[in-house]
Amino acid sequence: MEVNNWTQLWLSYQKVYEGHGTWGIGYSGFDAENRIVESAVYEFRTAMEGLTGENVVITDSEGNVKNDRILSLVKDESIPKEGYRVESGEYGATVKAPDENGLLYGIFALIRNVACGKKPGEIKEELSPSNPLRMMNHWDNMDGSIERGYSGNSFFFDKDSIIISRRTRDYARFMASVGINGVVINNVNVKDAASYLITDRYFDKVKALSEIFADYGIKLYLSLNFASPIELGGMSICDPMSKEVIDWWKGKMSEIHLKVPELGGFLVKADSEGRPGPFTYGRTQADGANMLADIIDQYGWIIIWRCFVYNCTQDWRDKKTDRARAGYDYFKDQDGDYHDNVILQIKNGPMDFQIREAVSPLLGGLTRTNQMLEVQIAQEYTGHQIDLCYLIPLFKEVLDFHTYCREGCDTVADVVSTRTFGNRLGGMAAVINTGNDYNWTGNDLAAANTYGFGRLAFDTSLSSEQIAREWIRMTYQLESDKEDILTDMLLRSREIYEKYTSFLGIGWMVTPHDHYGPSIDGYEYSRWGTYHRADHLGIGVDRTDKGTGYAQQYYKENAQMYNDPKTCPEELLLFFHHIPYTYKLKSGKTLIQYIYDSHFEGLKEAQELAQSWERLKPVIPAESHERVSKRFELQLVNAREWCDQVNSYFYRKSGIPDEKGREIF
Amino acid sequence: MEVNNWTQLWLSYQKVYEGHGTWGIGYSGFDAENRIVESAVYEFRTAMEGLTGENVVITDSEGNVKNDRILSLVKDESIPKEGYRVESGEYGATVKAPDENGLLYGIFALIRNVACGKKPGEIKEELSPSNPLRMMNHWDNMDGSIERGYSGNSFFFDKDSIIISRRTRDYARFMASVGINGVVINNVNVKDAASYLITDRYFDKVKALSEIFADYGIKLYLSLNFASPIELGGMSICDPMSKEVIDWWKGKMSEIHLKVPELGGFLVKADSEGRPGPFTYGRTQADGANMLADIIDQYGWIIIWRCFVYNCTQDWRDKKTDRARAGYDYFKDQDGDYHDNVILQIKNGPMDFQIREAVSPLLGGLTRTNQMLEVQIAQEYTGHQIDLCYLIPLFKEVLDFHTYCREGCDTVADVVSTRTFGNRLGGMAAVINTGNDYNWTGNDLAAANTYGFGRLAFDTSLSSEQIAREWIRMTYQLESDKEDILTDMLLRSREIYEKYTSFLGIGWMVTPHDHYGPSIDGYEYSRWGTYHRADHLGIGVDRTDKGTGYAQQYYKENAQMYNDPKTCPEELLLFFHHIPYTYKLKSGKTLIQYIYDSHFEGLKEAQELAQSWERLKPVIPAESHERVSKRFELQLVNAREWCDQVNSYFYRKSGIPDEKGREIF
Repeated sequence: MEVNNWTQLWLSYQKVYEGHGTWGIGYSGFDAENRIVESAVYEFRTAMEGLTGENVVITDSEGNVKNDRILSLVKDESIPKEGYRVESGEYGATVKAPDENGLLYGIFALIRNVACGKKPGEIKEELSPSNPLRMMNHWDNMDGSIERGYSGNSFFFDKDSIIISRRTRDYARFMASVGINGVVINNVNVKDAASYLITDRYFDKVKALSEIFADYGIKLYLSLNFASPIELGGMSICDPMSKEVIDWWKGKMSEIHLKVPELGGFLVKADSEGRPGPFTYGRTQADGANMLADIIDQYGWIIIWRCFVYNCTQDWRDKKTDRARAGYDYFKDQDGDYHDNVILQIKNGPMDFQIREAVSPLLGGLTRTNQMLEVQIAQEYTGHQIDLCYLIPLFKEVLDFHTYCREGCDTVADVVSTRTFGNRLGGMAAVINTGNDYNWTGNDLAAANTYGFGRLAFDTSLSSEQIAREWIRMTYQLESDKEDILTDMLLRSREIYEKYTSFLGIGWMVTPHDHYGPSIDGYEYSRWGTYHRADHLGIGVDRTDKGTGYAQQYYKENAQMYNDPKTCPEELLLFFHHIPYTYKLKSGKTLIQYIYDSHFEGLKEAQELAQSWERLKPVIPAESHERVSKRFELQLVNAREWCDQVNSYFYRKSGIPDEKGREIF
Repeated sequence: MEVNNWTQLWLSYQKVYEGHGTWGIGYSGFDAENRIVESAVYEFRTAMEGLTGENVVITDSEGNVKNDRILSLVKDESIPKEGYRVESGEYGATVKAPDENGLLYGIFALIRNVACGKKPGEIKEELSPSNPLRMMNHWDNMDGSIERGYSGNSFFFDKDSIIISRRTRDYARFMASVGINGVVINNVNVKDAASYLITDRYFDKVKALSEIFADYGIKLYLSLNFASPIELGGMSICDPMSKEVIDWWKGKMSEIHLKVPELGGFLVKADSEGRPGPFTYGRTQADGANMLADIIDQYGWIIIWRCFVYNCTQDWRDKKTDRARAGYDYFKDQDGDYHDNVILQIKNGPMDFQIREAVSPLLGGLTRTNQMLEVQIAQEYTGHQIDLCYLIPLFKEVLDFHTYCREGCDTVADVVSTRTFGNRLGGMAAVINTGNDYNWTGNDLAAANTYGFGRLAFDTSLSSEQIAREWIRMTYQLESDKEDILTDMLLRSREIYEKYTSFLGIGWMVTPHDHYGPSIDGYEYSRWGTYHRADHLGIGVDRTDKGTGYAQQYYKENAQMYNDPKTCPEELLLFFHHIPYTYKLKSGKTLIQYIYDSHFEGLKEAQELAQSWERLKPVIPAESHERVSKRFELQLVNAREWCDQVNSYFYRKSGIPDEKGREIF
């Protein structure tokens, strides 16, 4: 028998109260044999057994078994798509939903309420998802490695084969439990064996995966190699306007549809970081996306097209070219050109998932194009799941950002939900942080990001704290004072990480390639367009109208705000301005003193995080506590390294001593 | 039939004059069937056919064949070991030697003279080798990769197998032609399959290799894993004082001797950069080396023990620990402890093969220990065989360095030759720059280093220019004005490389790991002990008696010279001193202006090198010219990158503008 070499994350179901008796199930409008309905009932049974010790008995067709309580599953088409209405009382519980996905999410809502300590009678929840698309993007390679993976290897792929195991199903369960309805299983950089995922070599297994996902209301998506006509078709080009190329795709898509009908569509990274794309043939991104989209529309599939297009062979000497501008420059002109089963996937910031950067001006800047927000819970630049960094506050800032694209309905949350412009498609995607580690996410606490992203994508009105507390309750079930400690740790962690790393929106300063640990000049003289421009007098990138003009890509209100250092939010000061070390911040502190102070503080606060965790030792399962403690040990080494390197670098460069005379090297 | 997918380097033998008739061979004191004598005759025949079109006919036992000229091979034991006396005239030629190696080297001397344009009658050369050990160290891994290899993969190993081909023999021929008499075939970092080179898995092939080498008077050596008793013997320790460990080694060495009798001995890198060694057990390096040496002395084998021992997990904050000190600190105290079939292999400088560094104070600092000089012709820090960098001038500087260890006989050349202290063993070793590329060395011109090292090790009195001209004549046979151009290119190339890279002995500033291209701070905050300590006021490492005290490791005369910035040779100023940017150099220039000037000059001079090469286009074989031209293209990109990054970095840091107002970023 296969041994579960993995945890159950937030579905581990410790007993919350002693229940009694049995549950029966009543179906009204739902087919008991529907795959998703079956999953929902399975989840309910598993959860109730764990949480309350109650048995769930499947009522026979005559309803003859006598049960203590009934779970009524009721179809109600007045509820918005994928939504649910849950109520429970002494009689049992009712979950109403307009469709099977809604039913499944309603069941998980019920479970969550119980797991979080609610008693029957207290539970009443009505919700429909904020976003139609709620996706996870895996950057898993078929050799088993994961690009930017910090939790072991892939559980989807190994040695160019697809793995299907009980872990696959558990993964689908976790995703569904937080409302994820789409998963891209393979890296956006599609090469080698992954190009063959859309061939007979892998169809059987891809189909099997898609079926497991379908049981949980999840569509499987594949990252597509735009050069497939060349690599698979033996053609010499992949020009999206070539009739031969189009014909090849038609045949290929028809074949895929025959073999993997449950698919949701494709994710494409084109013309980026060495990936092939339409630019090679003088075509626009829209030409490329539309060609594919038109072919697959008949199957109900969509094309998700990434906007991460920029010149990655920039010259560091060139201070006019600005990578931050690239997304808007490339995509804004084609607003309205994309067909309506194409959606543009836009990273939250214009650079690349830094601990803090401005919100991408494409979000809301596009007004006639389907668009979705891409964030990264894989902690590429945010601590590699070694350092604690609860990212939901960062995502909330992005979602709450006012773009000024339409009065009264202009936040990023509004835009990607489709409510601003009434697009056909919208949503959120995260580059996921999982791997085949025992605990799935490297750091046990990083699962709060996995959980949190799903919950937030489903309900963007949830607060970071609400999500943190939910995750803690479902994972650790702590007494309230202990829950407060851990909640506080999570909520502070992102700012602490920011304090000891790069500051005021400048970003980068990380070890090249690896992206963990400091290397202040690591990207300063590189081809990546990622510069801090520090000299002995000051630091920062001038992106105002006198600089690269990036600030002008925003709607007027934001453009003006960012353009002036006096009105620019201080946490983004160096993202938009080149500032002297002697510049006085609003606090009255000079910039250089802020650098010193924030780094010493960040280090101290990281130490406090570790101490707080130590205080939780008695109430956290020993293995989990031990794993996380080891991470904190490494985090402290990292924080010290960052603190000392940043301070030493800027002291050596500016010659201005720390006012407090602390040790700088 | 196997196609020669490689060049013949300096043994390609284009016709130098039209000869006539045939040669016979006369043997006096040499056995015609001796393997080395046979090789010598084969080489003579091949060379003469190519160079003059003359046939060499093997005279039968009665000498009945009538030949136009006779090559007499005469044993003469009055000539020092491995030496030769060569003379030629109308009658033919005579090569006298005390042993077969001397005979082979005499034949190659004869060939070289002819190839370099000497006519019979003009040739008269008498020489014996400056150094008893003249070795090449390959850093080839058994998977086929080469650590710090820039010329393709290994031609000894592929996929954990040993390759034996015609290329192997050609390699041996090239080595013998420049007097190499020992080759270590595997990387000093012995791991994985390479640990098994001393087991039945590989004995047959190792023996076969050693036989090919033996045909050319070359001893095969193996790099040894000091932890073999653990990895192969299944023991828990490799303590050199443990009886069980010693017994295991005795058995193992006896087995090796039985299977590979032609072996020369072993090279060991212990207690360095993660390699296991005697320190683990509280033993000295001498304990480890002597244990092995005592066991193998009966087989006439030797242990070559590397002195590259230092703390590679240093804290950059710590300004007292100095990696430059490590070799002397670890090895000086044990001077005299090493048994006389152990030889310490000492890198030319105390750091690691930088473009310029001080000469290691261990050389001559040890007075009662066999010692040999290690240099690197693999261009790890000197341009990856992309950038032209003729290294013989660097090696000459080291060899000519006066250590003051013994009046009148105190240069490094004296010390390692054994003539200073009368050691049993001495010599020179180079980390070689070859791989399975068509041209062996990546850059065709890098073969001048391969050739040059061998020639220099054999005769340390040769000048850099003599060696360059010899190599050019044998390789390209140019008219004298063209030869002058190429000679000048080679002779200037090291200083040009130095000018556009790191300066005045400071070293490093290279891309971490890769070691090509600039990264000024790349090693500044690292664990490697390789710092420049630049701040806004100055740069350099204080290694005087007020600093790390490294300068005091030299004999008094040098210690005093280095200790004072006024007497310290300026090209090593920053190796020994921390100097303000405003410090006036002897030229009257400030240090910062020197940085700017030398980098702009270096870039310009690199461009001149490329232009000179362009002028040689009509006289260099097209393929070779094309290959080298492509390298120059890359070199210019590299030189520009170095120039701009170094200048920008120091301008940004110092705030002092270039007096000449050139563009700095």
